[in-house]
Amino acid sequence: MMVIIVQDVLDQLMAPVEKFPNTVDTLKYGDPNMEVKGIAISFMPTYRVIQQVVSAGANLLITHEGLFYSHTDNTEILKNDSVYQKKVRLIEESGIAIYRFHDYWHRYRPDGITIGLVRALEWERYVSEYQRTVTILNIPEMTVREIAEYVKRRLGIPFVRVSGDVSARCIRIGVLVGYRGGGALSIPLFEKGNLDLIIYGEGPEWETPEYVRDAVYQGKQKALIVLGHAESEEPGMAYLSEWLKTIFTSIPIYFIREEPVFHVF
Amino acid sequence: MMVIIVQDVLDQLMAPVEKFPNTVDTLKYGDPNMEVKGIAISFMPTYRVIQQVVSAGANLLITHEGLFYSHTDNTEILKNDSVYQKKVRLIEESGIAIYRFHDYWHRYRPDGITIGLVRALEWERYVSEYQRTVTILNIPEMTVREIAEYVKRRLGIPFVRVSGDVSARCIRIGVLVGYRGGGALSIPLFEKGNLDLIIYGEGPEWETPEYVRDAVYQGKQKALIVLGHAESEEPGMAYLSEWLKTIFTSIPIYFIREEPVFHVF
Repeated sequence: MMVIIVQDVLDQLMAPVEKFPNTVDTLKYGDPNMEVKGIAISFMPTYRVIQQVVSAGANLLITHEGLFYSHTDNTEILKNDSVYQKKVRLIEESGIAIYRFHDYWHRYRPDGITIGLVRALEWERYVSEYQRTVTILNIPEMTVREIAEYVKRRLGIPFVRVSGDVSARCIRIGVLVGYRGGGALSIPLFEKGNLDLIIYGEGPEWETPEYVRDAVYQGKQKALIVLGHAESEEPGMAYLSEWLKTIFTSIPIYFIREEPVFHVF
Repeated sequence: MMVIIVQDVLDQLMAPVEKFPNTVDTLKYGDPNMEVKGIAISFMPTYRVIQQVVSAGANLLITHEGLFYSHTDNTEILKNDSVYQKKVRLIEESGIAIYRFHDYWHRYRPDGITIGLVRALEWERYVSEYQRTVTILNIPEMTVREIAEYVKRRLGIPFVRVSGDVSARCIRIGVLVGYRGGGALSIPLFEKGNLDLIIYGEGPEWETPEYVRDAVYQGKQKALIVLGHAESEEPGMAYLSEWLKTIFTSIPIYFIREEPVFHVF
C-alpha cells in the first residue's frame, strides 16, 4: 500500500488554486514528511477537538480557523497565558500535524466553504450565481421567519439573529459565509442584486443590520439573517471531509463537529 | 432668556477632553450658529429616530454612532442607494443639526459610555477600577446564569449570548463596552485581572469566545457574556441625556431609545 505523507495531502488541497504569498494556510505543527495514519477535519481546532483527533488515532488535523484565537495566530499576547500554554503542550505531546486550510479553500471556484453551506441547506438547485464572495439564489417564496426556521433545522443550530422584516416574502437571497457581513460588501448587494434577504455568518452590528432596519422603516421589505461565523462555515469543512474521502480512500477521515460557541439566554 | 446655539452645546460636550485630530465627532448636518430649541440624544440615529426628533420639536440630535452604517460614514458605496438617499432627504428637509459624540465621550475619565452602563446595572458600588478601556468589578458572588438574567432585566434587553461555563461562580468581572471585545484587548484580562467573567458589547466570534471555550475545556471556570453593541452603549447615551439636563436647564432634552436591532429565532 502506498504511503501518504502530510505534504501529499497539503499538495492535493492546494493544487486547484494558484499559489499566493502571505497566506495563513501553513503547517502549524508537525513534520511534512510524516506518514498520515488518519485525517481529522474541523472548523475550529478547540482543545477538545485536538483531544478527539488523538482519541480517533488521526495524526493530521486540517482546520479552517487558527489555533490561538486570532486570525494571524498572534501568540505574543498569550505567551504567559496558562490556557495557551496547556494547549501548546497538548499539541506537542500528541505529535499530530496541524494544517490550516482557510485562504485556499475560499479561493476554490466556487468557494469550498460556500458550496458546503449551500449543500447543507439543500439549495444547490436554486443557485443563480456563485460570485467570488457572495452566492445569489432564487428560492421558492418563503417568509424570513420560515427561512430562519428552515436554516436552523437544516444546519442543526439552536438560534439565528434576524434584523428587519421577519414577515418579508423572499425569493432573491444573497449568502455570504464567515466574516463577509461587513457593510461595504453586503449593503450594496441589496439594491444591485435586487435581494430580499441576506444571510451571512458574522459582521459588524452597526453596519448591515442598521441598513436593513432603516430600509424597513422606509417601508421596504428587507431582512438579514445572521447565522454565526462557525455556523456559516463549519458545513464547508464537513463538505471538505466528504470530498477528501473520495481522494484518500486508504486513510480514515473524520469530521469533528463542535458545539455552538454561544448559548442564548 | 439666553439664546443657546448648537456650537455652545458642542463646546460644553468637548470641554473636559483635550482636543485631538482625526475624530468622527463632527457636526454632520446643520448650522453651528442655529439656536437650539430642543436636544435629542440617541445611540443609533436610525431613520425612525430622526423622525422622532422632528416630532418632538428638537432641532439638535446628539448621537453616538454614525448616520450611514459605517464608523467613518463612508457614503461612497451608498450614493446611488435609495435607503441612503431617502435618509439624507429626511435629514435635509427636517433642518435639524446632527452631531456625533463618540470619541470624546469615550475619552472622558471615566469613559462616559462605561459609566452609563455601570449605572444602569446598579453596579457602581462594586467598581474596583475604571481603566481606560475596561472596568473591573468585585460583585457579590453570582453564577453566570444569574448575572445573565440580572443584566437582561436591568438593561431591558431580550437576550444575551454566553460562551463558557454558565454555572461558574463570579466575583471578579471585567466590563468592556462597544467593539472592545477583540481578543488582543480582552483575552489577557482574564489572567492579568484574575477575572471570572468578561461582559462586552461586541467582538469577533473566533477570538475571546473561543479562548473562553478552551479555558473551560481545560477545567477552568470562565465565561463571557456578549450584550450586543447597542445594548452595551445605549445606557451611556441615556446617562448623557440625564447629565445634559442638569446643564441646559432651559432646553427640553429627550433621550430616544431604539428597539434591539436583532431578534433571536
